[in-house]
Amino acid sequence: MHITETTLQVQYYETDQMGVAHHSNYIRYYETARTDFIKSLGLSYRQLEESGTAMPIINVNCRYIQPATYDETLTIKTILKELPTSRITFYYEVYNQAGKLINEGHTVLAFINQEAQRPSRVPEILMERLRPLFSK
Amino acid sequence: MHITETTLQVQYYETDQMGVAHHSNYIRYYETARTDFIKSLGLSYRQLEESGTAMPIINVNCRYIQPATYDETLTIKTILKELPTSRITFYYEVYNQAGKLINEGHTVLAFINQEAQRPSRVPEILMERLRPLFSK
Amino acid sequence: MHITETTLQVQYYETDQMGVAHHSNYIRYYETARTDFIKSLGLSYRQLEESGTAMPIINVNCRYIQPATYDETLTIKTILKELPTSRITFYYEVYNQAGKLINEGHTVLAFINQEAQRPSRVPEILMERLRPLFSK
Amino acid sequence: MHITETTLQVQYYETDQMGVAHHSNYIRYYETARTDFIKSLGLSYRQLEESGTAMPIINVNCRYIQPATYDETLTIKTILKELPTSRITFYYEVYNQAGKLINEGHTVLAFINQEAQRPSRVPEILMERLRPLFSK
Repeated sequence: MHITETTLQVQYYETDQMGVAHHSNYIRYYETARTDFIKSLGLSYRQLEESGTAMPIINVNCRYIQPATYDETLTIKTILKELPTSRITFYYEVYNQAGKLINEGHTVLAFINQEAQRPSRVPEILMERLRPLFSK
Repeated sequence: MHITETTLQVQYYETDQMGVAHHSNYIRYYETARTDFIKSLGLSYRQLEESGTAMPIINVNCRYIQPATYDETLTIKTILKELPTSRITFYYEVYNQAGKLINEGHTVLAFINQEAQRPSRVPEILMERLRPLFSK
Repeated sequence: MHITETTLQVQYYETDQMGVAHHSNYIRYYETARTDFIKSLGLSYRQLEESGTAMPIINVNCRYIQPATYDETLTIKTILKELPTSRITFYYEVYNQAGKLINEGHTVLAFINQEAQRPSRVPEILMERLRPLFSK
Repeated sequence: MHITETTLQVQYYETDQMGVAHHSNYIRYYETARTDFIKSLGLSYRQLEESGTAMPIINVNCRYIQPATYDETLTIKTILKELPTSRITFYYEVYNQAGKLINEGHTVLAFINQEAQRPSRVPEILMERLRPLFSK
Protein backbone atom coordinates (compact mmCIF):
# COMPACT_ATOMS: atom_id res chain seq x y z
CA MET A 1 0.00 0.00 0.00
CA HIS A 2 1.23 3.47 -0.84
CA ILE A 3 -0.50 6.68 0.26
CA THR A 4 0.08 10.31 -0.68
CA GLU A 5 -1.57 13.51 0.45
CA THR A 6 -2.62 16.46 -1.65
CA THR A 7 -3.89 19.77 -0.38
CA LEU A 8 -6.03 22.16 -2.40
CA GLN A 9 -8.41 25.07 -1.98
CA VAL A 10 -11.98 25.13 -3.26
CA GLN A 11 -12.05 27.80 -5.94
CA TYR A 12 -14.85 30.31 -6.42
CA TYR A 13 -15.44 29.12 -9.98
CA GLU A 14 -15.96 25.61 -8.59
CA THR A 15 -18.91 26.62 -6.45
CA ASP A 16 -22.47 26.40 -7.73
CA GLN A 17 -25.68 28.12 -6.76
CA MET A 18 -26.18 25.69 -3.88
CA GLY A 19 -23.18 27.54 -2.41
CA VAL A 20 -20.86 24.52 -2.39
CA ALA A 21 -18.21 22.93 -4.61
CA HIS A 22 -20.08 21.41 -7.56
CA HIS A 23 -19.96 17.62 -7.45
CA SER A 24 -18.18 17.31 -10.80
CA ASN A 25 -15.08 18.94 -9.33
CA TYR A 26 -14.27 15.98 -7.12
CA ILE A 27 -13.47 13.95 -10.22
CA ARG A 28 -10.97 16.70 -11.04
CA TYR A 29 -9.62 16.79 -7.49
CA TYR A 30 -8.96 13.06 -7.84
CA GLU A 31 -6.93 13.75 -10.98
CA THR A 32 -4.87 16.42 -9.23
CA ALA A 33 -4.26 13.99 -6.37
CA ARG A 34 -3.29 11.19 -8.77
CA THR A 35 -0.75 13.48 -10.43
CA ASP A 36 0.85 13.99 -7.00
CA PHE A 37 0.79 10.27 -6.29
CA ILE A 38 2.76 9.56 -9.45
CA LYS A 39 5.19 12.36 -8.65
CA SER A 40 5.82 10.78 -5.25
CA LEU A 41 7.30 7.87 -7.20
CA GLY A 42 9.87 10.14 -8.78
CA LEU A 43 7.97 10.02 -12.04
CA SER A 44 5.43 12.23 -13.73
CA TYR A 45 2.27 11.51 -15.62
CA ARG A 46 3.75 13.69 -18.32
CA GLN A 47 6.77 11.36 -18.62
CA LEU A 48 4.44 8.39 -18.83
CA GLU A 49 2.55 10.01 -21.67
CA GLU A 50 5.72 11.06 -23.44
CA SER A 51 7.00 7.49 -23.18
CA GLY A 52 3.98 6.47 -25.27
CA THR A 53 1.53 5.31 -22.64
CA ALA A 54 -1.75 7.07 -21.97
CA MET A 55 -3.84 6.15 -18.95
CA PRO A 56 -7.52 6.65 -19.79
CA ILE A 57 -10.10 6.42 -17.03
CA ILE A 58 -12.46 3.49 -17.39
CA ASN A 59 -14.42 3.76 -14.16
CA VAL A 60 -15.19 6.44 -11.61
CA ASN A 61 -17.03 5.96 -8.37
CA CYS A 62 -17.61 8.86 -6.06
CA ARG A 63 -19.55 9.11 -2.81
CA TYR A 64 -20.50 12.51 -1.42
CA ILE A 65 -20.81 12.70 2.34
CA GLN A 66 -20.76 16.41 3.08
CA PRO A 67 -20.32 19.50 0.91
CA ALA A 68 -17.23 21.70 0.74
CA THR A 69 -17.43 25.47 0.57
CA TYR A 70 -15.48 28.20 -1.17
CA ASP A 71 -11.90 28.68 -0.03
CA GLU A 72 -11.99 25.63 2.22
CA THR A 73 -8.73 23.69 2.31
CA LEU A 74 -9.26 20.05 1.35
CA THR A 75 -6.82 17.23 1.93
CA ILE A 76 -6.99 14.26 -0.40
CA LYS A 77 -5.44 10.93 0.45
CA THR A 78 -4.64 8.85 -2.62
CA ILE A 79 -4.22 5.18 -1.92
CA LEU A 80 -2.85 2.38 -4.08
CA LYS A 81 -3.76 -0.91 -2.43
CA GLU A 82 -2.17 -3.33 -4.83
CA LEU A 83 0.16 -3.58 -7.78
CA PRO A 84 -1.51 -2.82 -11.11
CA THR A 85 -2.09 -5.56 -13.66
CA SER A 86 -3.73 -4.45 -16.90
CA ARG A 87 -5.50 -1.82 -14.82
CA ILE A 88 -4.69 0.37 -11.88
CA THR A 89 -7.15 1.35 -9.16
CA PHE A 90 -6.65 4.42 -7.03
CA TYR A 91 -8.73 5.08 -3.92
CA TYR A 92 -9.34 8.60 -2.64
CA GLU A 93 -10.43 10.09 0.65
CA VAL A 94 -11.23 13.79 0.82
CA TYR A 95 -11.06 15.51 4.20
CA ASN A 96 -12.21 19.04 4.98
CA GLN A 97 -10.42 21.59 7.15
CA ALA A 98 -11.96 20.15 10.30
CA GLY A 99 -10.48 16.76 9.40
CA LYS A 100 -13.83 15.22 8.55
CA LEU A 101 -14.11 12.74 5.69
CA ILE A 102 -16.46 14.45 3.22
CA ASN A 103 -16.00 12.38 0.05
CA GLU A 104 -14.51 9.10 -1.01
CA GLY A 105 -14.18 7.25 -4.26
CA HIS A 106 -12.00 5.30 -6.59
CA THR A 107 -10.98 5.38 -10.22
CA VAL A 108 -9.89 2.56 -12.47
CA LEU A 109 -7.47 3.41 -15.28
CA ALA A 110 -6.23 1.34 -18.20
CA PHE A 111 -2.91 1.56 -19.99
CA ILE A 112 -2.98 2.39 -23.68
CA ASN A 113 -0.15 2.29 -26.15
CA GLN A 114 -0.75 5.61 -27.87
CA GLU A 115 0.82 4.69 -31.17
CA ALA A 116 -1.08 1.44 -31.58
CA GLN A 117 -4.14 2.83 -29.76
CA ARG A 118 -4.36 -0.52 -28.02
CA PRO A 119 -4.30 -1.73 -24.43
CA SER A 120 -0.78 -2.21 -23.15
CA ARG A 121 0.85 -3.64 -20.05
CA VAL A 122 1.91 -1.47 -17.17
CA PRO A 123 4.87 0.59 -18.40
CA GLU A 124 8.10 -0.70 -16.86
CA ILE A 125 9.13 2.81 -15.68
CA LEU A 126 6.02 2.79 -13.49
CA MET A 127 6.28 -0.84 -12.41
CA GLU A 128 9.88 -0.62 -11.29
CA ARG A 129 8.93 2.18 -8.91
CA LEU A 130 5.87 0.42 -7.53
CA ARG A 131 7.38 -3.03 -6.90
CA PRO A 132 9.60 -1.98 -3.98
CA LEU A 133 6.59 -0.43 -2.25
CA PHE A 134 4.72 -3.71 -2.29
CA SER A 135 7.60 -6.16 -1.73
CA LYS A 136 6.95 -7.14 1.82
CA MET B 1 -39.92 3.40 -16.16
CA HIS B 2 -39.53 6.79 -17.79
CA ILE B 3 -36.84 7.62 -20.37
CA THR B 4 -35.80 10.90 -21.95
CA GLU B 5 -33.22 11.74 -24.57
CA THR B 6 -30.81 14.65 -24.62
CA THR B 7 -28.53 15.61 -27.46
CA LEU B 8 -25.37 17.65 -27.08
CA GLN B 9 -22.12 18.45 -28.85
CA VAL B 10 -18.67 17.86 -27.38
CA GLN B 11 -17.16 21.31 -26.94
CA TYR B 12 -13.56 22.21 -27.72
CA TYR B 13 -12.98 23.35 -24.13
CA GLU B 14 -14.09 19.92 -22.97
CA THR B 15 -11.32 18.12 -24.84
CA ASP B 16 -7.98 17.34 -23.19
CA GLN B 17 -4.53 16.66 -24.55
CA MET B 18 -5.45 13.03 -25.22
CA GLY B 19 -7.67 14.55 -27.93
CA VAL B 20 -10.95 13.40 -26.40
CA ALA B 21 -13.66 14.73 -24.09
CA HIS B 22 -12.14 14.78 -20.60
CA HIS B 23 -13.76 12.16 -18.37
CA SER B 24 -15.01 14.72 -15.83
CA ASN B 25 -17.40 16.14 -18.42
CA TYR B 26 -19.62 13.08 -18.42
CA ILE B 27 -20.68 13.94 -14.88
CA ARG B 28 -21.77 17.29 -16.30
CA TYR B 29 -23.47 15.70 -19.30
CA TYR B 30 -25.48 13.63 -16.81
CA GLU B 31 -26.60 16.83 -15.12
CA THR B 32 -27.68 18.40 -18.41
CA ALA B 33 -29.60 15.22 -19.21
CA ARG B 34 -31.22 15.16 -15.77
CA THR B 35 -32.39 18.75 -16.27
CA ASP B 36 -34.14 17.63 -19.46
CA PHE B 37 -35.65 14.64 -17.70
CA ILE B 38 -37.25 16.87 -15.10
CA LYS B 39 -38.48 19.24 -17.79
CA SER B 40 -40.16 16.32 -19.54
CA LEU B 41 -42.36 16.12 -16.45
CA GLY B 42 -43.58 19.66 -16.99
CA LEU B 43 -41.44 20.83 -14.11
CA SER B 44 -38.01 22.38 -13.80
CA TYR B 45 -35.16 21.82 -11.45
CA ARG B 46 -35.25 25.54 -10.91
CA GLN B 47 -38.86 25.33 -9.70
CA LEU B 48 -37.90 22.52 -7.36
CA GLU B 49 -35.12 24.62 -5.88
CA GLU B 50 -37.34 27.67 -5.62
CA SER B 51 -39.94 25.58 -3.80
CA GLY B 52 -37.29 25.00 -1.15
CA THR B 53 -35.91 21.59 -2.10
CA ALA B 54 -32.32 21.08 -3.23
CA MET B 55 -31.23 17.77 -4.70
CA PRO B 56 -27.59 17.19 -3.83
CA ILE B 57 -25.74 14.32 -5.45
CA ILE B 58 -24.69 11.61 -3.03
CA ASN B 59 -23.26 9.04 -5.40
CA VAL B 60 -21.89 9.00 -8.93
CA ASN B 61 -20.85 5.92 -10.87
CA CYS B 62 -19.54 6.27 -14.38
CA ARG B 63 -18.14 3.67 -16.75
CA TYR B 64 -16.15 4.77 -19.81
CA ILE B 65 -16.33 2.44 -22.78
CA GLN B 66 -15.03 4.54 -25.66
CA PRO B 67 -13.90 8.15 -25.95
CA ALA B 68 -15.82 10.98 -27.62
CA THR B 69 -14.14 13.59 -29.77
CA TYR B 70 -14.59 17.29 -30.39
CA ASP B 71 -17.82 18.33 -32.07
CA GLU B 72 -19.24 14.83 -31.92
CA THR B 73 -22.99 14.72 -31.27
CA LEU B 74 -23.79 12.63 -28.22
CA THR B 75 -27.19 11.30 -27.27
CA ILE B 76 -27.88 10.65 -23.62
CA LYS B 77 -30.72 8.47 -22.43
CA THR B 78 -31.82 9.26 -18.89
CA ILE B 79 -33.74 6.49 -17.22
CA LEU B 80 -35.77 6.45 -14.03
CA LYS B 81 -36.46 2.83 -13.14
CA GLU B 82 -38.51 3.28 -10.01
CA LEU B 83 -40.30 5.85 -7.91
CA PRO B 84 -38.01 7.75 -5.57
CA THR B 85 -38.20 7.23 -1.83
CA SER B 86 -35.81 9.32 0.26
CA ARG B 87 -33.47 9.13 -2.74
CA ILE B 88 -33.77 9.16 -6.49
CA THR B 89 -31.54 7.17 -8.84
CA PHE B 90 -31.08 8.16 -12.47
CA TYR B 91 -29.40 5.86 -14.97
CA TYR B 92 -27.63 7.24 -18.05
CA GLU B 93 -26.54 5.78 -21.36
CA VAL B 94 -24.39 7.90 -23.66
CA TYR B 95 -24.36 7.06 -27.37
CA ASN B 96 -22.04 8.54 -29.99
CA GLN B 97 -22.99 9.64 -33.49
CA ALA B 98 -22.61 6.12 -34.82
CA GLY B 99 -25.15 4.92 -32.26
CA LYS B 100 -22.58 3.09 -30.17
CA LEU B 101 -22.88 3.06 -26.37
CA ILE B 102 -19.73 4.81 -25.17
CA ASN B 103 -20.49 5.53 -21.51
CA GLU B 104 -22.99 4.54 -18.88
CA GLY B 105 -23.54 5.41 -15.26
CA HIS B 106 -25.93 6.38 -12.57
CA THR B 107 -26.31 9.06 -9.95
CA VAL B 108 -28.10 8.96 -6.63
CA LEU B 109 -29.56 12.22 -5.33
CA ALA B 110 -31.06 13.09 -1.97
CA PHE B 111 -33.73 15.66 -1.20
CA ILE B 112 -32.81 18.47 1.18
CA ASN B 113 -35.07 21.05 2.73
CA GLN B 114 -32.97 24.13 2.09
CA GLU B 115 -34.28 26.14 4.98
CA ALA B 116 -33.79 23.43 7.59
CA GLN B 117 -30.72 22.05 5.78
CA ARG B 118 -32.09 18.61 6.53
CA PRO B 119 -33.13 15.60 4.47
CA SER B 120 -36.69 15.87 3.28
CA ARG B 121 -39.19 13.64 1.54
CA VAL B 122 -39.71 13.75 -2.20
CA PRO B 123 -41.43 17.07 -2.94
CA GLU B 124 -45.07 16.52 -3.80
CA ILE B 125 -44.81 18.61 -7.01
CA LEU B 126 -42.31 16.01 -8.26
CA MET B 127 -44.10 12.97 -6.89
CA GLU B 128 -47.46 13.85 -8.43
CA ARG B 129 -45.84 13.92 -11.85
CA LEU B 130 -43.96 10.67 -11.39
CA ARG B 131 -46.77 8.53 -9.96
CA PRO B 132 -48.79 8.31 -13.20
CA LEU B 133 -45.70 7.12 -15.08
CA PHE B 134 -45.29 4.16 -12.77
CA SER B 135 -48.94 3.27 -12.18
CA LYS B 136 -48.85 0.99 -15.21
CA MET C 1 -20.13 41.32 -42.54
CA HIS C 2 -21.40 37.88 -41.66
CA ILE C 3 -23.50 37.09 -38.57
CA THR C 4 -24.62 33.81 -37.06
CA GLU C 5 -26.78 32.99 -34.07
CA THR C 6 -26.22 30.34 -31.43
CA THR C 7 -28.63 29.37 -28.70
CA LEU C 8 -27.63 27.69 -25.47
CA GLN C 9 -28.86 27.06 -21.93
CA VAL C 10 -27.01 28.09 -18.80
CA GLN C 11 -26.03 24.85 -17.08
CA TYR C 12 -26.23 24.24 -13.35
CA TYR C 13 -22.52 23.45 -13.20
CA GLU C 14 -21.85 26.86 -14.75
CA THR C 15 -23.50 28.74 -11.88
CA ASP C 16 -21.49 29.95 -8.90
CA GLN C 17 -22.44 30.86 -5.36
CA MET C 18 -23.54 34.32 -6.48
CA GLY C 19 -26.38 32.37 -8.14
CA VAL C 20 -25.44 33.32 -11.71
CA ALA C 21 -23.39 31.93 -14.60
CA HIS C 22 -19.73 32.32 -13.58
CA HIS C 23 -18.00 34.94 -15.71
CA SER C 24 -15.42 32.50 -17.10
CA ASN C 25 -18.17 30.64 -18.96
CA TYR C 26 -18.76 33.48 -21.41
CA ILE C 27 -15.33 32.81 -22.90
CA ARG C 28 -16.55 29.26 -23.48
CA TYR C 29 -19.88 30.43 -24.87
CA TYR C 30 -17.91 32.51 -27.38
CA GLU C 31 -16.07 29.36 -28.46
CA THR C 32 -19.31 27.44 -28.92
CA ALA C 33 -20.68 30.34 -30.96
CA ARG C 34 -17.50 30.52 -33.06
CA THR C 35 -17.80 26.82 -33.86
CA ASP C 36 -21.28 27.50 -35.21
CA PHE C 37 -20.05 30.47 -37.20
CA ILE C 38 -17.49 28.32 -38.97
CA LYS C 39 -20.09 25.62 -39.60
CA SER C 40 -22.31 28.22 -41.25
CA LEU C 41 -19.58 28.48 -43.89
CA GLY C 42 -19.93 24.80 -44.71
CA LEU C 43 -16.70 24.08 -42.91
CA SER C 44 -15.79 22.87 -39.45
CA TYR C 45 -13.14 23.92 -37.01
CA ARG C 46 -12.26 20.25 -36.87
CA GLN C 47 -11.56 20.23 -40.62
CA LEU C 48 -9.40 23.30 -40.21
CA GLU C 49 -7.37 21.59 -37.51
CA GLU C 50 -7.11 18.38 -39.49
CA SER C 51 -5.86 20.36 -42.48
CA GLY C 52 -2.94 21.42 -40.30
CA THR C 53 -4.02 24.83 -39.06
CA ALA C 54 -4.70 25.58 -35.42
CA MET C 55 -6.31 28.85 -34.40
CA PRO C 56 -5.03 29.85 -30.98
CA ILE C 57 -6.66 32.74 -29.17
CA ILE C 58 -4.39 35.73 -28.70
CA ASN C 59 -6.80 38.22 -27.19
CA VAL C 60 -10.09 38.11 -25.33
CA ASN C 61 -12.15 41.08 -24.31
CA CYS C 62 -15.40 40.58 -22.48
CA ARG C 63 -17.82 43.08 -20.98
CA TYR C 64 -20.45 41.96 -18.50
CA ILE C 65 -23.63 43.98 -18.44
CA GLN C 66 -26.09 41.80 -16.57
CA PRO C 67 -25.87 38.28 -15.11
CA ALA C 68 -27.52 35.16 -16.52
CA THR C 69 -29.17 32.56 -14.35
CA TYR C 70 -29.48 28.79 -14.39
CA ASP C 71 -31.48 27.32 -17.26
CA GLU C 72 -31.85 30.66 -18.99
CA THR C 73 -31.73 30.47 -22.78
CA LEU C 74 -29.02 32.73 -24.18
CA THR C 75 -28.66 33.80 -27.79
CA ILE C 76 -25.21 34.67 -29.03
CA LYS C 77 -24.63 36.67 -32.18
CA THR C 78 -21.21 36.07 -33.70
CA ILE C 79 -20.10 38.76 -36.06
CA LEU C 80 -17.22 38.89 -38.53
CA LYS C 81 -16.79 42.48 -39.63
CA GLU C 82 -13.93 42.10 -42.07
CA LEU C 83 -11.84 39.55 -43.92
CA PRO C 84 -9.03 38.07 -41.83
CA THR C 85 -5.41 38.88 -42.57
CA SER C 86 -2.86 37.20 -40.34
CA ARG C 87 -5.51 37.37 -37.62
CA ILE C 88 -9.24 37.02 -37.38
CA THR C 89 -11.46 39.00 -35.02
CA PHE C 90 -14.88 37.77 -33.99
CA TYR C 91 -17.35 39.98 -32.16
CA TYR C 92 -20.01 38.55 -29.87
CA GLU C 93 -23.28 39.81 -28.44
CA VAL C 94 -25.05 37.73 -25.82
CA TYR C 95 -28.79 38.25 -25.31
CA ASN C 96 -30.91 36.79 -22.54
CA GLN C 97 -34.41 35.33 -22.88
CA ALA C 98 -35.99 38.75 -22.61
CA GLY C 99 -33.91 39.89 -25.58
CA LYS C 100 -31.70 42.14 -23.50
CA LEU C 101 -27.99 42.46 -24.34
CA ILE C 102 -26.21 41.11 -21.24
CA ASN C 103 -22.65 40.63 -22.46
CA GLU C 104 -20.47 41.58 -25.38
CA GLY C 105 -16.91 40.98 -26.37
CA HIS C 106 -14.46 40.01 -29.03
CA THR C 107 -11.68 37.53 -29.56
CA VAL C 108 -8.65 37.74 -31.80
CA LEU C 109 -7.26 34.47 -33.14
CA ALA C 110 -4.05 33.73 -35.01
CA PHE C 111 -3.40 31.01 -37.56
CA ILE C 112 -0.68 28.49 -36.74
CA ASN C 113 0.80 25.84 -38.96
CA GLN C 114 0.75 22.93 -36.55
CA GLU C 115 3.63 21.05 -38.07
CA ALA C 116 5.98 24.01 -38.17
CA GLN C 117 4.46 25.51 -35.02
CA ARG C 118 4.70 28.86 -36.76
CA PRO C 119 2.26 31.57 -37.76
CA SER C 120 0.64 30.88 -41.09
CA ARG C 121 -1.63 32.71 -43.48
CA VAL C 122 -5.38 32.24 -43.45
CA PRO C 123 -6.01 28.73 -44.77
CA GLU C 124 -7.40 28.85 -48.28
CA ILE C 125 -10.35 26.56 -47.40
CA LEU C 126 -11.49 29.26 -44.98
CA MET C 127 -10.66 32.20 -47.22
CA GLU C 128 -12.53 30.90 -50.24
CA ARG C 129 -15.70 30.70 -48.14
CA LEU C 130 -15.29 34.14 -46.62
CA ARG C 131 -14.46 36.12 -49.78
CA PRO C 132 -17.94 35.87 -51.33
CA LEU C 133 -19.50 37.18 -48.11
CA PHE C 134 -17.45 40.34 -48.28
CA SER C 135 -17.43 40.97 -52.02
CA LYS C 136 -20.75 42.74 -51.71
CA MET D 1 0.78 49.89 -5.75
CA HIS D 2 0.46 46.50 -4.13
CA ILE D 3 1.60 43.23 -5.72
CA THR D 4 1.09 39.61 -4.71
CA GLU D 5 2.30 36.35 -6.24
CA THR D 6 0.37 33.15 -6.71
CA THR D 7 1.78 29.85 -7.88
CA LEU D 8 -0.26 27.11 -9.48
CA GLN D 9 0.11 24.00 -11.65
CA VAL D 10 -1.62 23.52 -15.00
CA GLN D 11 -4.03 20.63 -14.47
CA TYR D 12 -4.62 17.84 -16.97
CA TYR D 13 -8.32 18.67 -17.15
CA GLU D 14 -7.37 22.21 -18.13
CA THR D 15 -5.55 21.09 -21.27
CA ASP D 16 -7.31 20.87 -24.62
CA GLN D 17 -6.60 18.95 -27.78
CA MET D 18 -4.07 21.55 -28.89
CA GLY D 19 -2.03 20.13 -25.98
CA VAL D 20 -2.00 23.34 -23.95
CA ALA D 21 -3.99 24.99 -21.16
CA HIS D 22 -7.30 26.07 -22.70
CA HIS D 23 -7.54 29.85 -22.92
CA SER D 24 -10.65 30.06 -20.71
CA ASN D 25 -8.62 28.86 -17.72
CA TYR D 26 -6.61 32.07 -17.49
CA ILE D 27 -9.77 33.88 -16.43
CA ARG D 28 -9.98 31.33 -13.62
CA TYR D 29 -6.29 31.69 -12.78
CA TYR D 30 -6.91 35.41 -12.40
CA GLU D 31 -9.65 34.66 -9.90
CA THR D 32 -7.40 32.36 -7.87
CA ALA D 33 -4.73 35.06 -7.89
CA ARG D 34 -7.24 37.72 -6.85
CA THR D 35 -8.32 35.57 -3.90
CA ASP D 36 -4.69 35.50 -2.75
CA PHE D 37 -4.35 39.23 -3.23
CA ILE D 38 -7.28 39.87 -0.91
CA LYS D 39 -5.89 37.40 1.63
CA SER D 40 -2.61 39.30 1.62
CA LEU D 41 -4.61 42.18 3.10
CA GLY D 42 -5.61 40.05 6.07
CA LEU D 43 -9.10 39.73 4.64
CA SER D 44 -10.89 37.15 2.57
CA TYR D 45 -13.24 37.40 -0.34
CA ARG D 46 -15.50 35.15 1.68
CA GLN D 47 -15.60 37.72 4.50
CA LEU D 48 -16.40 40.43 1.99
CA GLU D 49 -19.30 38.40 0.65
CA GLU D 50 -20.53 37.54 4.11
CA SER D 51 -20.44 41.23 5.03
CA GLY D 52 -22.99 41.77 2.29
CA THR D 53 -20.84 42.91 -0.62
CA ALA D 54 -20.44 40.89 -3.80
CA MET D 55 -17.83 41.84 -6.37
CA PRO D 56 -19.11 40.92 -9.82
CA ILE D 57 -16.75 41.13 -12.77
CA ILE D 58 -17.71 43.77 -15.30
CA ASN D 59 -14.76 43.57 -17.67
CA VAL D 60 -12.08 41.05 -18.57
CA ASN D 61 -9.18 41.64 -20.88
CA CYS D 62 -6.70 38.88 -21.52
CA ARG D 63 -3.72 38.72 -23.88
CA TYR D 64 -2.15 35.36 -24.72
CA ILE D 65 1.53 35.46 -25.56
CA GLN D 66 2.64 31.86 -25.30
CA PRO D 67 0.85 28.65 -24.30
CA ALA D 68 1.30 26.75 -21.04
CA THR D 69 1.46 22.97 -20.88
CA TYR D 70 0.27 20.31 -18.49
CA ASP D 71 1.90 20.28 -15.06
CA GLU D 72 3.81 23.48 -15.73
CA THR D 73 4.17 25.74 -12.69
CA LEU D 74 2.80 29.20 -13.39
CA THR D 75 3.42 32.29 -11.30
CA ILE D 76 0.82 35.02 -11.39
CA LYS D 77 1.53 38.54 -10.26
CA THR D 78 -1.58 40.43 -9.21
CA ILE D 79 -1.19 44.17 -9.20
CA LEU D 80 -3.39 46.90 -7.79
CA LYS D 81 -2.20 50.20 -9.20
CA GLU D 82 -4.58 52.59 -7.49
CA LEU D 83 -7.21 52.81 -4.81
CA PRO D 84 -10.65 51.63 -5.93
CA THR D 85 -13.49 54.04 -6.37
CA SER D 86 -16.81 52.58 -7.44
CA ARG D 87 -14.74 49.96 -9.26
CA ILE D 88 -11.52 48.09 -8.67
CA THR D 89 -9.08 47.11 -11.41
CA PHE D 90 -6.63 44.26 -10.95
CA TYR D 91 -3.76 43.67 -13.38
CA TYR D 92 -2.25 40.22 -13.88
CA GLU D 93 1.01 38.92 -15.30
CA VAL D 94 1.42 35.18 -15.79
CA TYR D 95 4.95 33.76 -15.96
CA ASN D 96 5.90 30.21 -16.90
CA GLN D 97 8.53 28.05 -15.22
CA ALA D 98 11.29 29.59 -17.31
CA GLY D 99 10.28 33.02 -16.01
CA LYS D 100 8.84 34.14 -19.32
CA LEU D 101 5.73 36.35 -19.41
CA ILE D 102 3.15 34.22 -21.23
CA ASN D 103 -0.11 36.05 -20.52
CA GLU D 104 -1.28 39.36 -19.15
CA GLY D 105 -4.62 40.95 -18.54
CA HIS D 106 -6.82 42.91 -16.24
CA THR D 107 -10.25 42.65 -14.71
CA VAL D 108 -12.60 45.37 -13.54
CA LEU D 109 -14.95 44.52 -10.69
CA ALA D 110 -17.87 46.44 -9.24
CA PHE D 111 -19.17 46.41 -5.69
CA ILE D 112 -22.75 45.30 -5.16
CA ASN D 113 -24.79 45.45 -2.01
CA GLN D 114 -26.27 41.97 -2.07
CA GLU D 115 -29.39 42.79 -0.12
CA ALA D 116 -30.34 45.80 -2.21
CA GLN D 117 -28.85 44.28 -5.39
CA ARG D 118 -27.48 47.71 -6.15
CA PRO D 119 -24.04 49.19 -6.69
CA SER D 120 -22.35 50.11 -3.46
CA ARG D 121 -19.22 51.93 -2.41
CA VAL D 122 -16.03 50.11 -1.59
CA PRO D 123 -16.67 48.28 1.68
CA GLU D 124 -14.84 49.97 4.54
CA ILE D 125 -13.21 46.70 5.69
CA LEU D 126 -11.44 46.59 2.31
CA MET D 127 -10.71 50.30 2.11
CA GLU D 128 -9.09 50.53 5.51
CA ARG D 129 -6.61 47.86 4.49
CA LEU D 130 -5.82 49.44 1.13
CA ARG D 131 -5.34 53.04 2.23
CA PRO D 132 -2.05 52.45 4.10
CA LEU D 133 -0.60 50.75 1.01
CA PHE D 134 -1.19 53.82 -1.11
CA SER D 135 -0.43 56.52 1.44
CA LYS D 136 3.12 56.69 0.16
